[in-house]
Amino acid sequence: MKKTLLTLCISFSVIFLNAQKEGTIVMDDVVRQHYRQEILIPDIPGYVTLKCDFHLHTVFSDGAVWPPVRVSEAWEDGLDAIAITDHVEGHPKKMPGQKRMQYDVALPTAMALNIILVRAGEISRSMPPGHFNALFVKDVDALDLPDVMDALGEAVKQGGFIIWNHPGWRKQQPDTTKWMAEHETIYRKGWMHGIEVFNEKEWYPEAIQWAMEKNLAITGNSDVHDFYENYYNQDKYPIRPMTLVFAKERTEESLKEAMFAKRTATLFFNRLVGRKELIDPIIKQSIKVEPAFLYQDGYQYFTVKNLTDIGFTLVKKGSDKSELPSRIILPRRATIVLKAKQPKGEQFTYSYNLENVLTGVEQYYEYKITVR
Amino acid sequence: MKKTLLTLCISFSVIFLNAQKEGTIVMDDVVRQHYRQEILIPDIPGYVTLKCDFHLHTVFSDGAVWPPVRVSEAWEDGLDAIAITDHVEGHPKKMPGQKRMQYDVALPTAMALNIILVRAGEISRSMPPGHFNALFVKDVDALDLPDVMDALGEAVKQGGFIIWNHPGWRKQQPDTTKWMAEHETIYRKGWMHGIEVFNEKEWYPEAIQWAMEKNLAITGNSDVHDFYENYYNQDKYPIRPMTLVFAKERTEESLKEAMFAKRTATLFFNRLVGRKELIDPIIKQSIKVEPAFLYQDGYQYFTVKNLTDIGFTLVKKGSDKSELPSRIILPRRATIVLKAKQPKGEQFTYSYNLENVLTGVEQYYEYKITVR
Amino acid sequence: MKKTLLTLCISFSVIFLNAQKEGTIVMDDVVRQHYRQEILIPDIPGYVTLKCDFHLHTVFSDGAVWPPVRVSEAWEDGLDAIAITDHVEGHPKKMPGQKRMQYDVALPTAMALNIILVRAGEISRSMPPGHFNALFVKDVDALDLPDVMDALGEAVKQGGFIIWNHPGWRKQQPDTTKWMAEHETIYRKGWMHGIEVFNEKEWYPEAIQWAMEKNLAITGNSDVHDFYENYYNQDKYPIRPMTLVFAKERTEESLKEAMFAKRTATLFFNRLVGRKELIDPIIKQSIKVEPAFLYQDGYQYFTVKNLTDIGFTLVKKGSDKSELPSRIILPRRATIVLKAKQPKGEQFTYSYNLENVLTGVEQYYEYKITVR
Amino acid sequence: MKKTLLTLCISFSVIFLNAQKEGTIVMDDVVRQHYRQEILIPDIPGYVTLKCDFHLHTVFSDGAVWPPVRVSEAWEDGLDAIAITDHVEGHPKKMPGQKRMQYDVALPTAMALNIILVRAGEISRSMPPGHFNALFVKDVDALDLPDVMDALGEAVKQGGFIIWNHPGWRKQQPDTTKWMAEHETIYRKGWMHGIEVFNEKEWYPEAIQWAMEKNLAITGNSDVHDFYENYYNQDKYPIRPMTLVFAKERTEESLKEAMFAKRTATLFFNRLVGRKELIDPIIKQSIKVEPAFLYQDGYQYFTVKNLTDIGFTLVKKGSDKSELPSRIILPRRATIVLKAKQPKGEQFTYSYNLENVLTGVEQYYEYKITVR
Repeated sequence: MKKTLLTLCISFSVIFLNAQKEGTIVMDDVVRQHYRQEILIPDIPGYVTLKCDFHLHTVFSDGAVWPPVRVSEAWEDGLDAIAITDHVEGHPKKMPGQKRMQYDVALPTAMALNIILVRAGEISRSMPPGHFNALFVKDVDALDLPDVMDALGEAVKQGGFIIWNHPGWRKQQPDTTKWMAEHETIYRKGWMHGIEVFNEKEWYPEAIQWAMEKNLAITGNSDVHDFYENYYNQDKYPIRPMTLVFAKERTEESLKEAMFAKRTATLFFNRLVGRKELIDPIIKQSIKVEPAFLYQDGYQYFTVKNLTDIGFTLVKKGSDKSELPSRIILPRRATIVLKAKQPKGEQFTYSYNLENVLTGVEQYYEYKITVR
Repeated sequence: MKKTLLTLCISFSVIFLNAQKEGTIVMDDVVRQHYRQEILIPDIPGYVTLKCDFHLHTVFSDGAVWPPVRVSEAWEDGLDAIAITDHVEGHPKKMPGQKRMQYDVALPTAMALNIILVRAGEISRSMPPGHFNALFVKDVDALDLPDVMDALGEAVKQGGFIIWNHPGWRKQQPDTTKWMAEHETIYRKGWMHGIEVFNEKEWYPEAIQWAMEKNLAITGNSDVHDFYENYYNQDKYPIRPMTLVFAKERTEESLKEAMFAKRTATLFFNRLVGRKELIDPIIKQSIKVEPAFLYQDGYQYFTVKNLTDIGFTLVKKGSDKSELPSRIILPRRATIVLKAKQPKGEQFTYSYNLENVLTGVEQYYEYKITVR
Repeated sequence: MKKTLLTLCISFSVIFLNAQKEGTIVMDDVVRQHYRQEILIPDIPGYVTLKCDFHLHTVFSDGAVWPPVRVSEAWEDGLDAIAITDHVEGHPKKMPGQKRMQYDVALPTAMALNIILVRAGEISRSMPPGHFNALFVKDVDALDLPDVMDALGEAVKQGGFIIWNHPGWRKQQPDTTKWMAEHETIYRKGWMHGIEVFNEKEWYPEAIQWAMEKNLAITGNSDVHDFYENYYNQDKYPIRPMTLVFAKERTEESLKEAMFAKRTATLFFNRLVGRKELIDPIIKQSIKVEPAFLYQDGYQYFTVKNLTDIGFTLVKKGSDKSELPSRIILPRRATIVLKAKQPKGEQFTYSYNLENVLTGVEQYYEYKITVR
Repeated sequence: MKKTLLTLCISFSVIFLNAQKEGTIVMDDVVRQHYRQEILIPDIPGYVTLKCDFHLHTVFSDGAVWPPVRVSEAWEDGLDAIAITDHVEGHPKKMPGQKRMQYDVALPTAMALNIILVRAGEISRSMPPGHFNALFVKDVDALDLPDVMDALGEAVKQGGFIIWNHPGWRKQQPDTTKWMAEHETIYRKGWMHGIEVFNEKEWYPEAIQWAMEKNLAITGNSDVHDFYENYYNQDKYPIRPMTLVFAKERTEESLKEAMFAKRTATLFFNRLVGRKELIDPIIKQSIKVEPAFLYQDGYQYFTVKNLTDIGFTLVKKGSDKSELPSRIILPRRATIVLKAKQPKGEQFTYSYNLENVLTGVEQYYEYKITVR
């Protein structure tokens, strides 16, 4: 990259050099272009796959950005839906008296960019029981109640979907990640609908376990306070962490229905976590093994394509005589060529684990490569 | 860059795979690292060269960021001093009643990062007379007066340094860039100390002319409302636009003294504009032509080094027999090798214009390459 | 990007620190990952769109790379077919006696990566008549004849497809690009089948004119001598220049049939040049205007998607009351949102020129945006 | 980066649109700019620090590049000296009869770019004794002898400097890295002057141990066969692996003198390995801790600068009350701010290990931060 710097400056010199006497010289190329790039993750039969981030902060609590920024970031990054979840308690050092304008301020941008903006707030208390996002609520002001159970109850009364946020955050659960009596109470009342398996830069195996056992919706969200690109290393990880929601349509109502039905998964930095029945159709449409194009010296040469923005890593189960690699890296949108030592005209199947796809704690998705 | 994505994900898989049963897994590599990189522009004899941006907005008027963001951006980008110049009139759609907290909110970060934070405000009116930044004022609230002349007078009374902002902004000066009666009045009262030659993404040859004729301080500022990196194309132009101030020391007092003494210049996207007596010592220490290291077949081979973060373009004046290129591109921090057709043991000098260095309208700095 | 450097080194420190006493420490992350990324350019009805570069050099004439490098570059860059066209005359300073091994040396890699490798050579003479690529020949050695007409005749006799290379190369045509008597002779003999409209970093309007008038196949090729990535600025222009061939199948025979049938076009740095009947179906499947998703305050908001790796620029023809931008930039794989001032429920069509798509000299493809 | 693609294409459209009828249109911005960037590693008292890569291949054995490519890569990458070390035995599949032209073919480029080109060859045998580079030899042809001891003896006779290459390469030393009887023989004859501690992408703790015990010159080299940038991930690791040689002058004679005197070290991907007496003066001039600029609430705020292109990681030894981080990352050319809990006016020193600087196996360089 270093090598290209000057070329450009030169270019604009060429254009504008003679213009100095004619007044204002505009250099459009110094400004960054903004547009949306769709994230390639397949829909599954019967549902569209909505890409969502349900945990975001703005200046209306302890975030550093004006609310519409969250919408335009989401639009550029290929998301379909977001929730701005400023702490319902506000933030003592910032703008007293105006703590809940975030939704209204962001809405016009969301409408203009066709992003589903979910009205929401974060009920933020010390552990137990910790922090909870209330999505799809109608009156965020009304959630600002002294007692956390009152606040959660009010959210549920408004039709809210409640997520236990960052359950293994070491600041609140310093040693081990525990399901405490308070969580059991909330859960038994039917007030806990989802859980964050991923938050910001960390993930919680216990949360995967609980989601599976207790039928909680699996979510993963950024919880970003800073400008997205200033916080994350987007050069290295171009795709944002997200909750995947398998909805009947791309509407807020369908989104809500799907979440209460627990049709969700999470993708964070190439790691995909979800229930097997939802992951299965995604993977089937994500990786494509093509018939061999060459047979030579005892090897079948064939192509494997990754049709998604998820990078996959395959690790061979057991051993065989194919001489296929024990570890295969399949980057996003990439095509690779492999060769298997295998007799001409025969068909063999080789079993791999997708090391970055989990359907439970340490349960890797098994992917079979059939070479023919 | 595309090719490296997966490698990393793999790496962290390797590290953390066996850790799932032990709880919270933190992925530090998904987060971007923050630090400061100094900008290489030489000091000049007797003065340090301070890099400054005197025109920045936050949520306290129509900007999109919380004020400390402006400080940490400046620190990372290698600046020494900034002014947050929210419109003293505030912004009707945003947070009524709290329009002037920007300085106080940003100050702790500025102190902790050793950035000079100048108390300031932008007096923003329709043309004439347009927008003016008042720097080094003591009470920004007091500048919010209905009459623009009262506002400017109050700023001057407080010891303020007044800059006419974006004088050729086409929204305010649609056809030509004019010095109107109102500007003459402000100038004659001694209330105009500086002018923006560059603003945001455009520059104004007329402003260079006026700065030279009327002894105004030359400035260039970003006027950024969005996150810096979200607005500008920093991949292409890694160095921010800035006002250069030649101060006795790196203190706010020295900065102020230097500005009232008009010891300033501006650098924007490799274009350097300033008075000849200030540009001269910069260039002398920026480009280094080394003695020839090889004589072969009639050519002297020699090295030219650019010791700065300013890219230079040299265009030959007239013609000669040296076969040196008519156009030389010298990127930032780069070394290039040239060859001149020139008898062994003799010394010749070749004249070039620095196409990106202006000491007046269409007055390019002349650079002499001496080959020996 | 600068900000991420250390994080990684740290990561591998963490991994390997305790391993020093156990011997050899392998750092896989320092090595770049290689894979193919498909170029998104749609097929057209009845044909697959093959991406080809028919002009490449290696160490077997004046290039800097070993032949298989050309194949692996092409594979990574998403091409389907290449021709290595070393000068049939060889290169006096390089490896005498071995000048025509390029095809045989590259073939095993081409087979293993499923790249169509066309046997070829460049007949390289001073102007007139200049340089000609002979593709699909059988014996490159036999083309090394003193008389250029003999060489071309031999190529044709072998079934070769002849392209006039870089017809406007200023080194050979210093002032204007002329069709000389020699070219007329070659053409009349039926020995000129195609012409380069683009070569390396330049293009030739005259060649477009001649291709249209004389029914020559339009081609565009890199003519690269250096390693591809070392010559071109791939950070700025990730998609290689190429000849597009609309073939019945992805085989060498189909490729050859399509070229003799003149079903070709060229894409170079977002500029697409071809006959209208071939460009038409490409554009129809490249840009997708979706129905409005919002009507508000008199504006219809709608989405435009670019489904390809070709960036498009649209320039409005004439004027209207829609307030749609006069210039629309539609980057590769991007989605943008536009708003048209237009009554609710009505349908209007707006005419734009695709400024980067030519169906003749200064004949821009007309694109109609229908908003409903 | 993705967001900037189209802007540029647009720019050149603007420039050239009207030029089509005037003939050949040259697009200079599609081509990458080439220049040298110096690597910031300080000289040490009495010596200049030469950056060298003594292990490189070309098409004259099993490499993929023409020899001058190695010189221009080295020049761009900031190196001072290289050796092209094609296997003296050649490579059976490539260009028989011309195996040792590499030096002569590369020399003119080396002279024109002022790169020290060391005449060399790699004596490449199965283990024991493995591969050895012979530098500063006079006649590479004469090294092609059937018996490896004869070959090494001939190299020494010619004044050669012998390096044992990749002693822990798992292909040759599958389980552990052993010093075999044959190595002892070569060493006792005085025929082993240096050893590779780093090669390609791996390093060998045993080699560090042997270098220290047996007074061998420490070297680290790329052994690259492909184009440098195609093999390594230069986006992530912009600085090449290298042998550092502390020479009296930047000449081949001084280089040779320094190597026989064992004044060398190696830097590979931020890891610096060398004898303490040589590393010491480097580090002293690399990291600069400045006096505190702010005292507030019990903390001293101070700045740490990294003046080099080596990224450092500091890990605290023991514990203290300063609240300084236990792990400090100091990227290349970066400035960071730290705060230490420490009484005003007092001076304290804190001990860290430089985790990436080794003066022996698991012997980290101790760095003291003094805060005042």
